[in-house]
Amino acid sequence: MSGIGLPGHDHPQRRAAVVGTGLIGGSVGLALRALDWHVTGTDEDAPTLARALERGAIDVAGVDPRAELTVIATPVGSVAQLARQALERGGVVTDVGSVKAPVVAAVEHPCFVGGHPMAGSEALGIEGARADLFQGATWALTPSGGTDADAISLVHGVIRSMGAQVAILDPQTHDRLVATVSHVPHLTAAALMGVAAARSTESPALKRLAAGGFRDMTRIAAGDPRIWLDICNDNRDAICEVLDGLVDSLSGIRSIVAEGRTDELAEMLADAQTARRSLPTGAPMAEELVEVRVEVTDRPGELAAVTTMATEADINVYDIEVVHAAGGAGAMLVLVVAKEDAEQFLDRLERGGRAVGIHPLGDA
Amino acid sequence: MSGIGLPGHDHPQRRAAVVGTGLIGGSVGLALRALDWHVTGTDEDAPTLARALERGAIDVAGVDPRAELTVIATPVGSVAQLARQALERGGVVTDVGSVKAPVVAAVEHPCFVGGHPMAGSEALGIEGARADLFQGATWALTPSGGTDADAISLVHGVIRSMGAQVAILDPQTHDRLVATVSHVPHLTAAALMGVAAARSTESPALKRLAAGGFRDMTRIAAGDPRIWLDICNDNRDAICEVLDGLVDSLSGIRSIVAEGRTDELAEMLADAQTARRSLPTGAPMAEELVEVRVEVTDRPGELAAVTTMATEADINVYDIEVVHAAGGAGAMLVLVVAKEDAEQFLDRLERGGRAVGIHPLGDA
Repeated sequence: MSGIGLPGHDHPQRRAAVVGTGLIGGSVGLALRALDWHVTGTDEDAPTLARALERGAIDVAGVDPRAELTVIATPVGSVAQLARQALERGGVVTDVGSVKAPVVAAVEHPCFVGGHPMAGSEALGIEGARADLFQGATWALTPSGGTDADAISLVHGVIRSMGAQVAILDPQTHDRLVATVSHVPHLTAAALMGVAAARSTESPALKRLAAGGFRDMTRIAAGDPRIWLDICNDNRDAICEVLDGLVDSLSGIRSIVAEGRTDELAEMLADAQTARRSLPTGAPMAEELVEVRVEVTDRPGELAAVTTMATEADINVYDIEVVHAAGGAGAMLVLVVAKEDAEQFLDRLERGGRAVGIHPLGDA
Repeated sequence: MSGIGLPGHDHPQRRAAVVGTGLIGGSVGLALRALDWHVTGTDEDAPTLARALERGAIDVAGVDPRAELTVIATPVGSVAQLARQALERGGVVTDVGSVKAPVVAAVEHPCFVGGHPMAGSEALGIEGARADLFQGATWALTPSGGTDADAISLVHGVIRSMGAQVAILDPQTHDRLVATVSHVPHLTAAALMGVAAARSTESPALKRLAAGGFRDMTRIAAGDPRIWLDICNDNRDAICEVLDGLVDSLSGIRSIVAEGRTDELAEMLADAQTARRSLPTGAPMAEELVEVRVEVTDRPGELAAVTTMATEADINVYDIEVVHAAGGAGAMLVLVVAKEDAEQFLDRLERGGRAVGIHPLGDA
């Protein structure tokens, strides 16, 4: 293992660039600087950039043509253009937008890896930035078939070094899943708040009856609405599909309640309880890790295919390395996974026709 | 002021009875014992009753014919019958059920005051009971026209002494409001969890993408489903009406998203943001308090009418005392409110034809 993403004292200082130094960009800057990276930053809002510098989220304001990684952390609408500009300067480029298929299709470059950290949902700006914002959070990466394996590996390593868990998904799957767990829940919080607000004009006491459960359910509606306009525009189809499912479900529940079908209501609530309790808790358990080594041809799409397979089997990949054969077309992927997941992953890879092996961590 | 609800060292020890010593009943017992009350308890589940005794939530297991207040803290379905039994023993009786109109109609007794503390939504049983469970929480009381003013005043004082804020509402209004802020949100959390669970069978990665917002929105779905069957049965009409409103709202949002009507989406989200931010925070501010004194005839319904007027004007009543004229039919209500609310309350009462006055707190 080459220790990707960890500061190497015998290496030159690694260099990153952050475009957009708000909550997420500022937090990336703080996290990378804590890991001994040199971070350059830009932001179209001069006071935001000045605060990022004051807060130590960046070393210097400006563009760094030597950055090996550029993180685009601007609103979704401007990501594609800024990513293309960064790719012209060189290095690997990733972004942090909430919708991935349109931007991945628009950029379409081997060194662009779409990304989406599931952290910091309320837009607090640079003042809310924290070096530990991504600790324990899930960070989705959405390579396409044309993405370079080394680019994926680099971004994966950097994200892991900031304490996040990586989930690799194809962009369309990502967008359908976040419509379910983020976009439609946000719209639902707003709808619930709207229904309650209409009633509270008749009965001001409503607000005082709103206890913890209601506060929890509507908290995200307090966030900045602006980012949701881009999200709803870019992820329209997936959001509408999930909204249809939710409206169907609520209409069904309405019938069950109206007709007093208690057994069905009990079953529905018990299923929801079971599902809610099965959500993983934030902190990953300390697990024994092993390396799974996979032979691949040295062409685009191979790493994305293998890691997407892991994600779809709910297997977390803790680290990724690409070992290129000297002068040849072959390569070896080294994927670090929990020991308990390794056999299942191996089965899956072998059924896919891959030559694989399991090794203790760091085995030569 | 007679110091209702505060332990009086020159008075005999006050006596309460708790029927059902789970989370809420146990917490009432712990809170009252901390205030120097003598608390007797019963529970149809012997181990629960034994734990309540061990945890100090009750002084003694059994029935207390001398209790001035009995708190029925059992599932909604059994409240009416247990309340009638307690009323036969004497004293004032209240309950803690989530739906009020059916139980208030079924019991119909001057010494029964329907109640509903907005605290402890997940049924954790006696192990979750805490003396401070009601600190800062809102506790609804739902007297009817036939409820005795002294009974309301007694229950109000006891609840205030446990640290809760009281909202007095008529039972039907209460039920419509909790359908909006509690019952439908719970069903919505279950529906969202169901939609997500269906998708996670295709894509196990969904669970790892479920970040804070989704966790917040579905947290209440992890609670015990059983209590919701009674609630949905007893509050059917109000729940169906609110569900209809929510389904309409979500269908409208679906059209807005599908047709890209960005201005309408922005307005809807901004309205929700404003409404969410206007929810009062849990901790009441330290305020300067005054007494509002209202002359009333000494008959049922007078106190309920006056206090409901306060609640509907969003004026919090910190304390209530009923001063009976010696031998006559008249009485004086003494209501403690924030100084800043007093003028508005006075206006409202005067428009209602009441003779009123404002006095400094404790003025003779």
